[in-house]
Amino acid sequence: MPELLDPYPHVFMDRPTKVANSMRKTVAVMEGASEIADITNRDEMGHLVCEVFGDDGFPLSIHFVMFLPAIQGQADDEQAEEWVHKAIQLQFIGTYAQTELGHGTNLRALETTATYDKNTQEFVLNTPTVSAYKWWPGNLGKTANVVVANAQLYIDGKNYGPHNFFVRIRDEETHQPMPGITVGDIGPKFGLNTNDNGFLKFDHVRIPRRSMLMRHSKISPEGTYSPPVHPKLSYGAMIFVRATMIRMLAHSLLKASTIAIRYSCIRKQGEITPGAGEVKILDYQTQQHRLFTAMARGFAYWLVGQEIKQIYERIAEDVKQGNVDQLADLHALLSGMKSVVSFDAGKGIEQCRMACGGHGYSHASGLPEIYAVEVAGCTYEGENMVMLQQQARYLVKGVQKLAKGEELTSMLKYLGNNSNRRFRFAEAGSKIEDTLIQAMEYIARTTIQRVSARLDSLKESGLSDEDAWNENAVELTRASRTHTRLWIAVCFKDRVNRIQDPKIRAALQDILHLHLCYEVIDMSQYLLEGGYATGAQIAQVKDVLYKLLAKIRPNAVSYVDAYEVSDTELRSVLGRRDGNVYDNLLKWAQSNPLNNVEVLPAVEKHLMPMMKNAKSKL
Amino acid sequence: MPELLDPYPHVFMDRPTKVANSMRKTVAVMEGASEIADITNRDEMGHLVCEVFGDDGFPLSIHFVMFLPAIQGQADDEQAEEWVHKAIQLQFIGTYAQTELGHGTNLRALETTATYDKNTQEFVLNTPTVSAYKWWPGNLGKTANVVVANAQLYIDGKNYGPHNFFVRIRDEETHQPMPGITVGDIGPKFGLNTNDNGFLKFDHVRIPRRSMLMRHSKISPEGTYSPPVHPKLSYGAMIFVRATMIRMLAHSLLKASTIAIRYSCIRKQGEITPGAGEVKILDYQTQQHRLFTAMARGFAYWLVGQEIKQIYERIAEDVKQGNVDQLADLHALLSGMKSVVSFDAGKGIEQCRMACGGHGYSHASGLPEIYAVEVAGCTYEGENMVMLQQQARYLVKGVQKLAKGEELTSMLKYLGNNSNRRFRFAEAGSKIEDTLIQAMEYIARTTIQRVSARLDSLKESGLSDEDAWNENAVELTRASRTHTRLWIAVCFKDRVNRIQDPKIRAALQDILHLHLCYEVIDMSQYLLEGGYATGAQIAQVKDVLYKLLAKIRPNAVSYVDAYEVSDTELRSVLGRRDGNVYDNLLKWAQSNPLNNVEVLPAVEKHLMPMMKNAKSKL
Repeated sequence: MPELLDPYPHVFMDRPTKVANSMRKTVAVMEGASEIADITNRDEMGHLVCEVFGDDGFPLSIHFVMFLPAIQGQADDEQAEEWVHKAIQLQFIGTYAQTELGHGTNLRALETTATYDKNTQEFVLNTPTVSAYKWWPGNLGKTANVVVANAQLYIDGKNYGPHNFFVRIRDEETHQPMPGITVGDIGPKFGLNTNDNGFLKFDHVRIPRRSMLMRHSKISPEGTYSPPVHPKLSYGAMIFVRATMIRMLAHSLLKASTIAIRYSCIRKQGEITPGAGEVKILDYQTQQHRLFTAMARGFAYWLVGQEIKQIYERIAEDVKQGNVDQLADLHALLSGMKSVVSFDAGKGIEQCRMACGGHGYSHASGLPEIYAVEVAGCTYEGENMVMLQQQARYLVKGVQKLAKGEELTSMLKYLGNNSNRRFRFAEAGSKIEDTLIQAMEYIARTTIQRVSARLDSLKESGLSDEDAWNENAVELTRASRTHTRLWIAVCFKDRVNRIQDPKIRAALQDILHLHLCYEVIDMSQYLLEGGYATGAQIAQVKDVLYKLLAKIRPNAVSYVDAYEVSDTELRSVLGRRDGNVYDNLLKWAQSNPLNNVEVLPAVEKHLMPMMKNAKSKL
Repeated sequence: MPELLDPYPHVFMDRPTKVANSMRKTVAVMEGASEIADITNRDEMGHLVCEVFGDDGFPLSIHFVMFLPAIQGQADDEQAEEWVHKAIQLQFIGTYAQTELGHGTNLRALETTATYDKNTQEFVLNTPTVSAYKWWPGNLGKTANVVVANAQLYIDGKNYGPHNFFVRIRDEETHQPMPGITVGDIGPKFGLNTNDNGFLKFDHVRIPRRSMLMRHSKISPEGTYSPPVHPKLSYGAMIFVRATMIRMLAHSLLKASTIAIRYSCIRKQGEITPGAGEVKILDYQTQQHRLFTAMARGFAYWLVGQEIKQIYERIAEDVKQGNVDQLADLHALLSGMKSVVSFDAGKGIEQCRMACGGHGYSHASGLPEIYAVEVAGCTYEGENMVMLQQQARYLVKGVQKLAKGEELTSMLKYLGNNSNRRFRFAEAGSKIEDTLIQAMEYIARTTIQRVSARLDSLKESGLSDEDAWNENAVELTRASRTHTRLWIAVCFKDRVNRIQDPKIRAALQDILHLHLCYEVIDMSQYLLEGGYATGAQIAQVKDVLYKLLAKIRPNAVSYVDAYEVSDTELRSVLGRRDGNVYDNLLKWAQSNPLNNVEVLPAVEKHLMPMMKNAKSKL
């Protein structure tokens, strides 16, 4: 359907044009979706959105991914009856307003207030300071006309902590801000410029008592507050979003790998053997090393993301049955996973971009945008350093449990392994993947134990728990990363070995081995530190890795082609499936707006008179 | 002077507006410069350009930095007489056209031809294929009206290799392309969008014989070719540009550190001790680790960049005296230096950006643009992987010389050190900086020796020299990096210890020690590998590093303030010297173009009818 396509590359558009174009496509998609996809299938709809909107923003994504789940999960039955079907039918467009200009992950510090007025049975929403402006919510600036807003609940002068409120912010008929509301766009960003992330100020805005989302906490007309039965019930939504993120981030890395590997088979540069002619740049070992390790991480994260989706669904089912045992495990794991995957995928994408030389720097490659959008994942949904420390708390608790002889959950069982076995790489009878994973277990175990011991010794030396923690914060984030990388490796290995088709399994085993070698080499200092491995053994792992690069080389394009991203979604002249790169780079460049006129008005106005003056001075 | 300022933040402008704004400022600067700066002072003019144009592009920079030096260095006296003063007076604006759509660093593969026609005593310039389009030259698209173009010289069917030609590409009066010329802008990029990097096609364009730059090679009217006396004379320009780059890249990293460190003293988030109130985020060890190590590298690169400038000037003087002995050393060093500094400065800038959380992602921080512009340095002036291998060739030759008992230049002397001494960190009588630098010498020496040995053994096993090289390419780039990082450390140490003022020296010694600890920890696998250090010793280095973070913390803002970047140049709401961040973020956001109208036309046209329809379906 042509109305789902951009009239010209969206990277040529200024922000107002990008936003307008995406609003136009939104209506086309919502009207036409049922003709081209199964709209009840979440994966199929997700795929359609990727094709039509690319990375940079679908104006309804926050509506569907955060706003709707919030009212589904937190509104009581009567409220849900009132709001949910309207939201699904798009009678209004919502967003989720939590972070403030001066406040991020620490919810207790949010400044927006919702003060209950018993006399009128209303809440008064207020933004007391500049730092209390709601800031960042996606599509808040110009698109949304309702929000779920988070504010400190006050009754009779007492603070009951942050709660969520359903608020209309723009008039249903005119879309003008409601009285007392100031709302707008927060301005251009590194990426996601199609999204009108917004700011929002409440000036004593009155909303009815039943605007508070009351599934868990309630307030009676007289102002009596009833707290939630289970205080951690909002947990689930966060876990869901982070689980989804892993697949999104992996997808970005695999898109970047697709572009760079395809282009590296088109681009020729330099000679390996003098006089034998220029070679494809993918024949250089450095290029293979950059790109195949990025692709391997991409496949690892993608498959692990699929596993996590299933684990999430299983645990969500348990939770419905009242069993919350594994929730803490999953929450900790996803804190670490979100951090490691967002950061390492970002590094991989930048390697893909740089591996394309100058053309990787052009928006024609698609790579700058993939990076700028993906790397936002290091910050949103919990800043990475904070997330890593969250997981570290869980790991340190594991060590403490172990010391007390308590049983560990299956995810932490390896912490109790006391074997003195050393690295058996390349020994007879040792299987490469098992040997490497044992090495990663050693790394994670000793790193976590070491930082726990350092924590204890600082406390013994008189530091408070909190100061000792902060003194160890960097080492704790490192420990957290080693655990996450181990977990990814184990999960990736299990997934690959479960593949039925022997050819596909064999092909992915090469990728698995490459991934494991790369991770072990990257963390080799931890293996050497305790004498687990020798330098000669690390050199052997490197040799295996270099052999794998050569083995993967002839099939590199098949690997990324098998991932099957369409040209429409890829939005990359360099990554075109047909390889017709140079003709299309030229066409792309020629059509960019700076070439609309041959002589720019500013050249006539400024530069031509300057040069003319210079001549007349002679 | 108000005409030197942007009327509103340039990140709000679309590309045509950015380009026009910068052309306007160019004329203002060229007219007004002499009133505000000493225009004969290169540093002062460089500083003025940074203030007025920021990172993203001064339309005359290629004219002054590459085009003018090219004609000064490569035109013969008569040609120089004709062109140089016109270029200085800006009677025309030039650029330097070398790379092509399909060809980068390998000059021998350039496809553009200049065929000498004896009958008319002209060259015929031609672009035979799409991949032969000149591509990327700065300010070529819309600004420049003359170029120095690189083309394969053909006389009587014989190729004499790439030569440079002075060509008028746009009409002096009308600025329209000359007959046979197709020229335009190559489209939007990751950064540098104020620059109209361009493409250029020659369709059998005839230029007079004397258009060839003839200081070194000549061609007589009859078509007799005289080769240059010294084939490596173009070397110098490349070295000059790379030496300048080191300071530019360091400056970017120090700007980013300034923004992030200042903001981290404004931003409060979370509590370290419960109930004690939110703390400045700079009080977190993870934040100090990210930012202080980035700042330390910034100072290291900056001071080393200054040293290199002096070394360059000294060697340039030697070269004039006919002494080219040290040219190869400097060329090798700068290949490695440019790669290590561009990549590690990029990583540091991204750490600064992420350390600012969500606001670091906004263009209000200035950080996305600093990164996007800086990271281009990994690609231009020689792709980093190619550059690292260039230096590696020099290092491997050093090892070979050593084996033959030949003498090494002072830069490589440490390769011959055969001491069996182990790491003496924290031992009585050992000076921390000397101990750490000896460790870095050990790392570089063993890494280079190991890869040389691996190269030899692969050759002995039957691989050709070239294939053996490619099989070692990744290890060679690693060796090259360890050598460069050692050289930076040594040079930084010497520079700091030469500082006269004892207070400043002491302050920078803390930064030096932090830098050395960080580098050694980052490369600790190489120390452990050969048994030079133990895990316990690495833990001691870490302890020293963490203590230095705490020591630097109270003075962190003073360090970056001492670097003295003005608010005008910084272009960052987060990094304002006065710390008034939140009010100004709000003002900045409110003034962005998406807020020009309250209700966007696309909302009225698309989203409002969609919501109205949804309601009517009820």
